Amino acid sequence: RYLSTEISLGQYPGGAFTTGPDHGGLVPTSDGAGEVVAVGEGVDGCAIGDRVHSLFSEAWVSGPAQEKDWPTTIGSHVQGCLTQYRIFPANFCLPVPEHLSYEQAAAIPCAGITAFNVLFNHGSTTPDSTVLVLGSGGVSVLGAQFAKAAGARVIATTSSPDKASKYKALGVDHVINYRDTPNWADEVKKLTGGLGVDQVFEIGGKGTLMEAIRAIKPGGVVHVISVPPEVATTSINELAMALLLKQGKLNGVLVGGRDVGQRLDSFISKHKITPLVDSKVFEWKGAKEAFGYLQSGAHFGKVVIKVD
Amino acid sequence: RYLSTEISLGQYPGGAFTTGPDHGGLVPTSDGAGEVVAVGEGVDGCAIGDRVHSLFSEAWVSGPAQEKDWPTTIGSHVQGCLTQYRIFPANFCLPVPEHLSYEQAAAIPCAGITAFNVLFNHGSTTPDSTVLVLGSGGVSVLGAQFAKAAGARVIATTSSPDKASKYKALGVDHVINYRDTPNWADEVKKLTGGLGVDQVFEIGGKGTLMEAIRAIKPGGVVHVISVPPEVATTSINELAMALLLKQGKLNGVLVGGRDVGQRLDSFISKHKITPLVDSKVFEWKGAKEAFGYLQSGAHFGKVVIKVD
Repeated sequence: RYLSTEISLGQYPGGAFTTGPDHGGLVPTSDGAGEVVAVGEGVDGCAIGDRVHSLFSEAWVSGPAQEKDWPTTIGSHVQGCLTQYRIFPANFCLPVPEHLSYEQAAAIPCAGITAFNVLFNHGSTTPDSTVLVLGSGGVSVLGAQFAKAAGARVIATTSSPDKASKYKALGVDHVINYRDTPNWADEVKKLTGGLGVDQVFEIGGKGTLMEAIRAIKPGGVVHVISVPPEVATTSINELAMALLLKQGKLNGVLVGGRDVGQRLDSFISKHKITPLVDSKVFEWKGAKEAFGYLQSGAHFGKVVIKVD
Repeated sequence: RYLSTEISLGQYPGGAFTTGPDHGGLVPTSDGAGEVVAVGEGVDGCAIGDRVHSLFSEAWVSGPAQEKDWPTTIGSHVQGCLTQYRIFPANFCLPVPEHLSYEQAAAIPCAGITAFNVLFNHGSTTPDSTVLVLGSGGVSVLGAQFAKAAGARVIATTSSPDKASKYKALGVDHVINYRDTPNWADEVKKLTGGLGVDQVFEIGGKGTLMEAIRAIKPGGVVHVISVPPEVATTSINELAMALLLKQGKLNGVLVGGRDVGQRLDSFISKHKITPLVDSKVFEWKGAKEAFGYLQSGAHFGKVVIKVD
């Protein structure tokens, strides 16, 4: 069977228990997809041979994550998915949308649920709205794909002309090179008639938070999805003032529960979306190499490891 | 006739043109209420003798303030209300709710519209929700009154036992003394079964922003209404991380447009709310004293100046 995974170690702020709650080693990676090879007694709605994918947590049903949901976070608090066999609660894996391969389905859980949660729970994404995604990590690329499927206008930033072309191939309307245009909020405003965008996917680059606030329209939302460890020179007072003048929102988003996963899969099936998987797919033995590739930033879309 | 005013000079971040756009002196105060003594030709829906109150801006109709709305901000960009006579666009003053005096009505516009906007546009205030208001300025006290009228549970902070009694008399459920309990978020959590509140009115005291984020429940909202000029020692990265872990929202709120004012007046009439006016009402000649009184922080509720 297959088990393909997103590698998100150290990327979310819940803390990573690298030695695991059992004080043994912890199998890494948050996301996976594969075939059901055994079903427990009395389990309904799940059969041997079913194609399924994981979720972010094995307890998070809906709404914001509560404290009780944290101890079952896959790949950081309980065993991850980089393994041939793994036992899941039947309620906490979902059927893979029919048109997707395991590699593509493995790109869904963490980044896809986050991006969907941002656009359709926390935000209001309509054909007359504009979404700005920063960089080309999994959440941004999937966010761009989902926003385009919903008919919105999408602007992306990247430092690479090659990645800009890939964004364009996904239907993204405008790509700004943030190296050439460090004050990219000005360019975003130019592209939106001086107004700014409705939503930003703030992924946490150097100095991006204040620039993201500059890039929204009055009443717009900056979704804070990830934060860099570095200390910024801006004070929280300056940030609060900028937010106040924009009447803007900063919105902390941490993935989403099972209900968001279910809605996402329906959306993906309805719009026949193929989550973009990086052209390099690694073998199980190449897992270390895969982590290094992810850290190098050379990827575009999700990095997948195929487990035989 | 009466003209009563809220004094909000220097308290909002749009900048105060103290010399006025006409390069002359600018009449201060944002809010006022009084009697219509003359009506322009062709003006409908407004008659001599009507009791009316002002709004924050003479152009802001609805939604977030746009750039075009700023140049007509009363008391900072155009002449304020501390005057016997003033010409208003007929559309930008509203009828005073019948049960209110001019003094009480003058307490509505800026602070009341802000508080209403927070609770019923930006937030969702229901009988099963909890609202935390910080300090006892106009927005906080009116916010507490409106939230109680909507059936919500309300917690307030203050440093004064006398003000605590006044909050209790308004029906506020719990009052925390922030001098005795500097880590008041812990107390807020105790009072909410360990969970935290749905909404906070963040008025911008020293160190309050991070404590406010600590006080919300997962998915809760901190409404940023005012920001202190001091530089905080917390970095914006720490703030963003705290927000992310709480899946919380920071929400910049700047008063509201005419539509919010209209909904507020209906709400006030329906619930027969009497905006709390401080026990000291000043005469026109005592205006300077009134400003000093406001700055001293001794007031509870709105400070009003009565113009003969």
